[in-house]
Amino acid sequence: MSDFVFITGNQHKADYLAKWLGQEVKHQKIDLVEIQSLDLHTVVENKARRAYDLVQRPVLVEDVALTFHALGHLPGPLVKWFLEEIGTEGLCKLLRPFEDKRATASIMYGLFDGKVLHTFEAHVEGIVADQPRSLDSLEWKNSLSWNSVFIPNGTTKTYAEMTDDELKPFSHRAKAIAKLQAYLHSQQ
Amino acid sequence: MSDFVFITGNQHKADYLAKWLGQEVKHQKIDLVEIQSLDLHTVVENKARRAYDLVQRPVLVEDVALTFHALGHLPGPLVKWFLEEIGTEGLCKLLRPFEDKRATASIMYGLFDGKVLHTFEAHVEGIVADQPRSLDSLEWKNSLSWNSVFIPNGTTKTYAEMTDDELKPFSHRAKAIAKLQAYLHSQQ
Repeated sequence: MSDFVFITGNQHKADYLAKWLGQEVKHQKIDLVEIQSLDLHTVVENKARRAYDLVQRPVLVEDVALTFHALGHLPGPLVKWFLEEIGTEGLCKLLRPFEDKRATASIMYGLFDGKVLHTFEAHVEGIVADQPRSLDSLEWKNSLSWNSVFIPNGTTKTYAEMTDDELKPFSHRAKAIAKLQAYLHSQQ
Repeated sequence: MSDFVFITGNQHKADYLAKWLGQEVKHQKIDLVEIQSLDLHTVVENKARRAYDLVQRPVLVEDVALTFHALGHLPGPLVKWFLEEIGTEGLCKLLRPFEDKRATASIMYGLFDGKVLHTFEAHVEGIVADQPRSLDSLEWKNSLSWNSVFIPNGTTKTYAEMTDDELKPFSHRAKAIAKLQAYLHSQQ
């Protein structure tokens, strides 16, 4: 199972995975249709099966969710549509009528060999910033990403204001990759 | 093509279709997975193909969208998730930070015989009410429906405050059904 291909069109996601996993990662861009659901597992399982059908070898897929406690399970895995439509400023503005600014950043990786799906997930609690904040030097983080609006508990910085070294202990992505790494090592 | 089965689990939708189409309508409940998209045509086309694969005869499917102009194309076809998570009160509250209360109610029917997809859509412009309002006697309209928050242009009532006779001239559903009806008649 260590010979998987990571299905992503996002070079940064591939870079983070290789860096925090401590190994090279093959990756391939395939635009997978995603099903409507607020449940990350449902979305990831469906993506994994579609990706496997297309490449016919073990695949790793991933999906993220940003959940605002004031909005039930929204935006959840649908956050990408929110970003496209209202951007990071809009995400902050949505919460203005609500006292509760708590949010959960979630990620799930799915490793699928055509038979068994293994998932590796992590959740980080935090709050939503009043407005987007990011380091100018990390311009990709500013774009279509909610990194600039999420402040994990235990710090006052948004994800997008942190260097990679600062980010790692707070990162939902790093935590899930650590679980994936432990699994891959156990299989060697 | 007039011998189609309408795929819905919602008896009210089947009733309205039969009433405004002026003919009996066979209907069948199948819970179809929907794909993530803010484009109604994309969602309907996918639903139609999945439904046809399952029942192997001409199918009619439908999807609706409620678009808040202040939020780009949101909630759009994803409005069902918004309703589940924050309800009709939440829908109204979301718009509080925004001056622009305009909304568009959309619907698309898709008739698919396994080869050709015919779509029948309608859009009605209006605004979002400050809070949900509905007739007590129409209790089903209050539940998981945005009828109680949408006020079409040309009236001060929400859809859910109208009797069926009042509703018809303002209804996105009635307009789309009229297009479907014209098509069915043209095929006889």
